[in-house]
Amino acid sequence: MKKSMDSQPQEVRLGLVGLGTVGSGVFEILKNQAVSLEKKTGVRLILQKIAVRSVSKKRAVSVPKALLTTDAMSVALDPRVDILIELIGGIRPAKEIILKALSSGKHVVTANKALLAEAGEEIFTAADANNRKIGFEASVCGGIPIIKSLREGLVSNDISQFLGIVNGTCNYILTRMSQEGCDFKTALVEAQAKGYAEENPALDVDGVDSAHKLAVLARLAFRSAISFKKIYVEGIRGLRREDIGYAQELGYAIKLLAVGKKHPKGLELRVHPTLLPNGHPLAGVRGVYNAVFIHADQAGDQLFYGRGAGKKPTASAVMSDVLDIARRNVSGSQRAKAPRLNFDNKKVLGIEETISKYYLRFQVADKPGVLGMIAKTLGQNEISILSVNQKESHATKSVPVIILTYAAAEKNIRKALKVIDASRGVSEKTIMMRVES
Amino acid sequence: MKKSMDSQPQEVRLGLVGLGTVGSGVFEILKNQAVSLEKKTGVRLILQKIAVRSVSKKRAVSVPKALLTTDAMSVALDPRVDILIELIGGIRPAKEIILKALSSGKHVVTANKALLAEAGEEIFTAADANNRKIGFEASVCGGIPIIKSLREGLVSNDISQFLGIVNGTCNYILTRMSQEGCDFKTALVEAQAKGYAEENPALDVDGVDSAHKLAVLARLAFRSAISFKKIYVEGIRGLRREDIGYAQELGYAIKLLAVGKKHPKGLELRVHPTLLPNGHPLAGVRGVYNAVFIHADQAGDQLFYGRGAGKKPTASAVMSDVLDIARRNVSGSQRAKAPRLNFDNKKVLGIEETISKYYLRFQVADKPGVLGMIAKTLGQNEISILSVNQKESHATKSVPVIILTYAAAEKNIRKALKVIDASRGVSEKTIMMRVES
Repeated sequence: MKKSMDSQPQEVRLGLVGLGTVGSGVFEILKNQAVSLEKKTGVRLILQKIAVRSVSKKRAVSVPKALLTTDAMSVALDPRVDILIELIGGIRPAKEIILKALSSGKHVVTANKALLAEAGEEIFTAADANNRKIGFEASVCGGIPIIKSLREGLVSNDISQFLGIVNGTCNYILTRMSQEGCDFKTALVEAQAKGYAEENPALDVDGVDSAHKLAVLARLAFRSAISFKKIYVEGIRGLRREDIGYAQELGYAIKLLAVGKKHPKGLELRVHPTLLPNGHPLAGVRGVYNAVFIHADQAGDQLFYGRGAGKKPTASAVMSDVLDIARRNVSGSQRAKAPRLNFDNKKVLGIEETISKYYLRFQVADKPGVLGMIAKTLGQNEISILSVNQKESHATKSVPVIILTYAAAEKNIRKALKVIDASRGVSEKTIMMRVES
Repeated sequence: MKKSMDSQPQEVRLGLVGLGTVGSGVFEILKNQAVSLEKKTGVRLILQKIAVRSVSKKRAVSVPKALLTTDAMSVALDPRVDILIELIGGIRPAKEIILKALSSGKHVVTANKALLAEAGEEIFTAADANNRKIGFEASVCGGIPIIKSLREGLVSNDISQFLGIVNGTCNYILTRMSQEGCDFKTALVEAQAKGYAEENPALDVDGVDSAHKLAVLARLAFRSAISFKKIYVEGIRGLRREDIGYAQELGYAIKLLAVGKKHPKGLELRVHPTLLPNGHPLAGVRGVYNAVFIHADQAGDQLFYGRGAGKKPTASAVMSDVLDIARRNVSGSQRAKAPRLNFDNKKVLGIEETISKYYLRFQVADKPGVLGMIAKTLGQNEISILSVNQKESHATKSVPVIILTYAAAEKNIRKALKVIDASRGVSEKTIMMRVES
């Protein structure tokens, strides 16, 4: 980077890898706001090179051909580039590109939650070793400055837990299911028609994307390297509209939550459909919106809410990282170095080691003794019942019985359900969901 | 500051001016979290000196006598101090202390919204001239990282407007009035008993504190110096419980809002009781909580919610600034300098130049022709009616007529009300409140 003189703007050169949805958004900001950003921040951002898959492809944005290359690695190596912006996603070749950029002295900004979740420590270690910054605000919750808030805003806080709605696709589907009473498939098709869900929606609806974001958030919130494979993940594909209805009757909304909790024995990290009481700040988050609810020991309860995805919100997050790095790494002194943030290695608890409240829907034969058997089995496994609702049913085969429990150990719940589901009066596998309050 | 070696923590020395509620919170964090903060951030914070009014005063926190002084200016001048934390509030002597600290080479962290609102440009100019940082996260919304989000997280956004509930005392009073149907005075006494309101509540309930915070937020959101005296301020003292009830019947909550809007002709900056439709994210913010709703062109709608005051949340914000400055200003090179953020001088529009929707409660004689006169007068002043509700009344004198309007010019509203209030059928001064949606 050129050194800043009082009268001259700081020039910072960017290499952009990927010109898809978010990449186009970044390109447009750089093109349309060059003057206003320079005026605001004193930094002149110059787009040096853009790596794309095909130079001849038609694009919604008009890009000078001379800026384009199909050789992403050449951008990572380009000595004129100060900051490399990686927006192609996925592990390969993004990881190689980022590592090469860091080792050749560039700072990196990325929106790649999959990479940070699955190979984060390698990336962060490489950034530290090369004394380079890595910005990843865009990897979680789009334009909401949640990364910055966790890393800097709440730095003196001990964060005991957070709950996040971090996948807009799932939240849209769940919102439609609860508003319209439709089933998962109908809501998914609608989300696809509106462009809120991919043709292959697996990454979203099976909870993997939420787990990636959970890993990124948990690392910062709990200052610990996170073993992504240990995160428990359940998606929304199996969610039945009946259960959304029953939950509503009991005063709860069902959300796909990313849950992070710190216990003396380790971290609880899980993604699954969750019942939230209607008064909870996250229960009212609808449609494609994202929100993260944090409990911090000093600052108290906090909620961050906004658009979690899309071209403009995500590009806004990318630009906030770019300008942070551009503004704060201008001294010209390569030796100048902020102290490292330190991370330890907390254990991630297995799902059987966790404790939660539960929603259980049993499908039982409408005859004497079955409810007694269920109650007895729960009791034998140290599970206390908070409420019981047996639904009147006009089907002859079976009736639903909905039980909410007090906090119980997951391993006890599983043991009890194994017994109950094997018994005669129970006609279907019991539906089990966790409840947060 | 001592230069950082890879193996040694960065030592940063702090001078604390003021050991009241927030000061004690900062002291406790520094005392109890010294080790964990050093481990997290690589920075060793050393409290060098604390200025207090009386050394012998009994305190809830136990402070080594040797740390205390009654000479605040000596802390500002102490060459060992790297960062001065100003927590005494008010204009004098806080302003002199901060200016002296800056000119003698210290960075400053402050929670002083009154000072920043009323003499901000002088302080910010002095910080720039001395190449020193000034952190003021704690000045608005306690532990919510709203300053950082506006300044850094949304840097590439054009913020067209924001609405904030920024005074917990008023929000507590309004919440109690709407939940219990009690009047202002009863709710105020309750707030005082709970420690949520001062014995002299003027600064809070008359809206001045909210206006201070509005000035601080508007400066960052709109990148403009703000002339504090031009902010329009109306408090909640005159708010009647009947109007809260009528608003509820119409599906609105009444909140004391700090409103900032950017127009081509200038800025709209106003603090006043405001009707918000129940579905609005701010309508559900209850009790002492604060929240700010922002509309940004790239990131979209965002909401930040949390505790806006109190010892721990505010101390958390102070510490986030302290650690930001400590971590980022460690290069040892006094010449290293991030480019300045630039601010212009936007005009603040007079209240008569603004446009809003309105809630109007007329107190009229229950006889023919009065409603017609009101409707005609509004029409003559280009005010369109959205809804009319005439309440049945058992009082003989007058009945309330509630009219909601479409967007209208404030100057027209004022002209119309002048005519209406002077006419025979109207028995009281008409109640007028603005509506946001």
